[in-house]
Order: sequence, then C-alpha cells, then structure tokens
Amino acid sequence: MIIDKLIKKIEALSAPIVVGLDPRLVQIPNCIKDEVFAKKGKTLEAAASIIFAFNKAIIDNIFDVVPAIKPQIAMYEQFGVAGIECYIKTIAYAKSKGLIIIGDIKRGDIASTAEAYSYAHLGMTDVGGVKHDVFQSDFITVNPYMGYDSIKPYLSDCNEYDKGLFILVKTSNPSSIEIQDLRADDGRTVYAHVGQLVAKWGRGLIGEFGFSSIGAVVGATHPSEGKALREVLPTTFFLVPGYGAQGGKAADLKDMLNKDGLGIIVNNSRGITGAYQLDKYKGQFDETMFAQAARAAALDMKADLEANALCR
Amino acid sequence: MIIDKLIKKIEALSAPIVVGLDPRLVQIPNCIKDEVFAKKGKTLEAAASIIFAFNKAIIDNIFDVVPAIKPQIAMYEQFGVAGIECYIKTIAYAKSKGLIIIGDIKRGDIASTAEAYSYAHLGMTDVGGVKHDVFQSDFITVNPYMGYDSIKPYLSDCNEYDKGLFILVKTSNPSSIEIQDLRADDGRTVYAHVGQLVAKWGRGLIGEFGFSSIGAVVGATHPSEGKALREVLPTTFFLVPGYGAQGGKAADLKDMLNKDGLGIIVNNSRGITGAYQLDKYKGQFDETMFAQAARAAALDMKADLEANALCR
Repeated sequence: MIIDKLIKKIEALSAPIVVGLDPRLVQIPNCIKDEVFAKKGKTLEAAASIIFAFNKAIIDNIFDVVPAIKPQIAMYEQFGVAGIECYIKTIAYAKSKGLIIIGDIKRGDIASTAEAYSYAHLGMTDVGGVKHDVFQSDFITVNPYMGYDSIKPYLSDCNEYDKGLFILVKTSNPSSIEIQDLRADDGRTVYAHVGQLVAKWGRGLIGEFGFSSIGAVVGATHPSEGKALREVLPTTFFLVPGYGAQGGKAADLKDMLNKDGLGIIVNNSRGITGAYQLDKYKGQFDETMFAQAARAAALDMKADLEANALCR
Repeated sequence: MIIDKLIKKIEALSAPIVVGLDPRLVQIPNCIKDEVFAKKGKTLEAAASIIFAFNKAIIDNIFDVVPAIKPQIAMYEQFGVAGIECYIKTIAYAKSKGLIIIGDIKRGDIASTAEAYSYAHLGMTDVGGVKHDVFQSDFITVNPYMGYDSIKPYLSDCNEYDKGLFILVKTSNPSSIEIQDLRADDGRTVYAHVGQLVAKWGRGLIGEFGFSSIGAVVGATHPSEGKALREVLPTTFFLVPGYGAQGGKAADLKDMLNKDGLGIIVNNSRGITGAYQLDKYKGQFDETMFAQAARAAALDMKADLEANALCR
C-alpha cells in the first residue's frame, strides 16, 4: 500500500521530509534564466523551461536524501499549457529517480467533477476506451469543504490504483482559524470534526504500520492542535506544512508522532529549494550552486529532525 | 464593475442563467467523435479537439440567449496539457462572442500559491517583467476553508483587473451538510459564518446595483438556507448550482432575490449541453442537432425562470 511504501522510504532514509517544489521565477538563479530568456524570450514556454531545469537540478541533488517531493500545481498552472507540461515532466522525472510524489493540488469538487480530477491525478483518464495516465501522482492534497461527495471518487481510485490523499484538516496559515477553528455545539472544532471524517473515510485503506493511505494536512504552526489530533486519530498520517519559514519548529512536532515514532512527513519548500538565497548558505554556495545548497539544507533539516527525535 | 456588467447582461437578456460547460466525452455525439478519433486516435489531443468542437457549437447557439458560461476546469484538466489548451480556447471563443466567463476552478490555497492562481485566472502572470493573460476568466469560484489568507490575493486582482469571485458557501450536494451545516456554539452554521465572511471580504467591491463582485455559491437544492442567507447577506450575489438534474426547482429560488428582483444567476450544465439526450428533446433533435437542442433548452429554462418571476 502506498502509505507503507512512503513510511518504509522515510525509515530507510531516516528522513520524514518532503521537499516542496513551488518554484517562483524570482527565486531561480539568473544563471538559469538568462540563457533561456535569450533563446525563447520572456514567454510562458521560457518560464516552464526555466522551472524544469531548476527542478531537475534540485531533484538530482535530493533524491537520495528525502523520500518524496510535493510539487505545488499553482506554481505551474500560472504558466498555462507550458506550465502544466512542466508539472507533468517534473513528476515523471522525480518518479524516474524513485521519489514518491505528493501532488499539492487542493482540489475540491463533487460527483463527475471530482471523478475527473481523480482520473487525472490518481487514476486513469479514459478516451474512447483507451486509458491515459495523465499526472501520475502517488498522493494528492484535497479540500474537504463539500463533504464526502467530494472525497468518494478519490477513495475509489486510491483503492484501485494504490494511491493516497492528504485532506486539509488544520492548515498552517494564520487565518485557518476563521473557519477551521469555529467551535461546534458539541464543543469540538470544525477541524476536529473534519479530522474524524478523514479517519472514517480512510478506514478501508489501512496498511501494515497501522496508518491509512488517507492522511491529513496538519500545520506545524499548531503543535497543541497537532498533539490533540494525534490522540484522536491514531491511524491518520499527517502531512505537516509550515516548518521553517512559517515558524513551525521541529521541537514542536514530537507529539504528532505515535508511540512507534511514526505519523508525520514534514514539508519544506523554499527553505530547501531557495537555500542558496538564505544567509546561512549564501557564503558557502553561490547561485550556480543552488542545487548543492538545497542538498545541504535538506541534510541540515534531517539533522534538525533527528536532534528532536523525529526520525525513527 | 464586473458584477454590474453581469447584472446588466442578465437584465438585457432577461435571463439569470449561466450555462455550465462540463463536457464529458460520453455525452458528446458520435458525429463529432468518430471523425476526430479516426484522424487523431483515442488520444488526449483528440479528446480536447472533440470538446472544443462541441463547446464552440454550443456557444454559437446560446451566446445571444444567456449572459455567461461556466467552464468546469476539471473536465479539461483531466486531459492534461491538451485539455488545458482546450479550456483556454473555450474561454477565448466565448469571450469573442460577448459572453461573461465564470471559471469554475474551486481553487483554495494561501500566500504566494493563491497569488499564482490569481495571476493565472484573474490577473496577469509575470515572466521576467512581461505580463501574460493566461486563463482570462471574469469570475472564478474559490474554496474558503483556509480563511482570508486564501482569499486576499484574489481580492487584490479583482480590484486591479475588475474581476470577481464566487466563494463556496452552501453547496448543492447532499454531503455539503457534513461540514457546512455544523452548528457553531453561537447557534449559527459554518456556512452562515462563511457567508458573513464573504460579505465582509466583498465590502470594497460593491457596484451600482448594491451587489459586490465578491459573490457566493449557494445551491438551488437548499431553498430555505438560500432565503436565510439572502436576508443576512443583502450585498452578496449568488451563483446557484443544482437547478434541474440535482433537483433544484425555479419555484424555490424566489426568496434568494432581493426586493429589486436581483441577486442570483442560476447554473445549468448538462440540462442544456446534453439536452439532445433528454426525453423532452430527443424526438425533436437528433444528435447532429445537439447545439440546437441546447438552444431550445436554454430558452425553455428562461421561460421556466420567467414563469416563476425570477427574471426582472
């Protein structure tokens, strides 16, 4: 089961880390951009070429350190057709290097619409009886606001194609409180209700470590909420954004683990991919060494998680 | 302001109707499919060509009857790069015929990610200082689960580029109750809280009819909830899905209007685009006349809304 594959890879590398590939052009070194702009102009196609070159170098330098990448589709979709092509190529390349793919798409819709998203990102798209594997993710993130109708089609493809989900429960951003932290009349928050639904939806897909392939997104910026969610959701694996730039600290994540020391994968995006721009790495790596800086940052993050007893 | 433009077009045509373009290959006539499959095989490119030909014929037959179309991006995204190209072409063609575009994308994310979606669908994508208008929607649908952080970037582009949003509040599907109808400890539902946030977020974009360019999605299948929302949200325009196939009736929508008889635009997708397959139209239109059947169905829907005093 895909959640077992993810956990085994986390254990083998001793790194519960996923590298977010959320490239912004302003963060990509000029040494990559200048040549492509000169050749293709400042076009959407040029942007896509630049991002793929950047991603490929990052992947080449982190594939043996971390188990997974999480491309954020918005950062590709903004470049239209060329951007979507780059998103697909990035996933295919990362898969060829053995990485597990968490497609950060946060889609949410119902019935045949959710089916279409599911076919595209997890299952197969049918064209007159011929099946096409379009986006090839292993996991995707999805939004639960519309309820079970918006989750069911994915569950069916998770079952058939051995894929998984991370459903938004308690997100890392400050205004997550506006809706997620509303307190229902039974005393529990909206996100606690959503968490319980996620556990219920995932019951049929529990693997050998006791975790379901249907996981939850729980921000690193909310450690006490994360602890409480772990207590009531023993079979739900957490994808944890918000480490680093958003203020989440490794020391705060311990209580999101279960008694076996399992249960989380922590995302880091620009803290790794943009490491060459950070004071900590600037002196050691110039912009031509952005990918080596990313590797160093991934190793440093692993050391930080290890020091805080987050790696089994 | 875009909401005024929409309302004026609704009034001019006496038709508070948006046609959902959610094409499924199984619902497209063989007379279109056979030729393209013969030429291009059962490829993603063939699927995209088929869908564009279908959409174009529908648009040609409804552009003078209804003010707007609502393409559902999932139905295009499932065909990958070719599908996204078809989504863009469909929007461009509909715009060339004077239609207003509601991009049904239901995106929801934060910070620079929401910005990227906003640049792509409402504003402009920047490539090294050159601006690109990628998806060219007038409105998009968005998901509020992450709170204001996930809305703010869109508001800024709505302001700068005169665009609008429809934010999910109370959706038409049965399991919308699971999260949206949780009752908060102040006695109000989650969707009522979300509705109030939507009104607050839209305060800076209120046009000449007293409605904001920041609207709400409120399902036709929940008339009493819709009535209650109209009472507390006088400046929020409603995009109303669920008419027809999902069971929403015109007679139920009257209370979603304000005292001026304004306040809603009702979506119909396959009840119009797939009319040639419905018993009501089958005898009169064969599959080669699918687009004429769509026109007849749009006119019949207009008559139904008029008969129920929904058109001013």
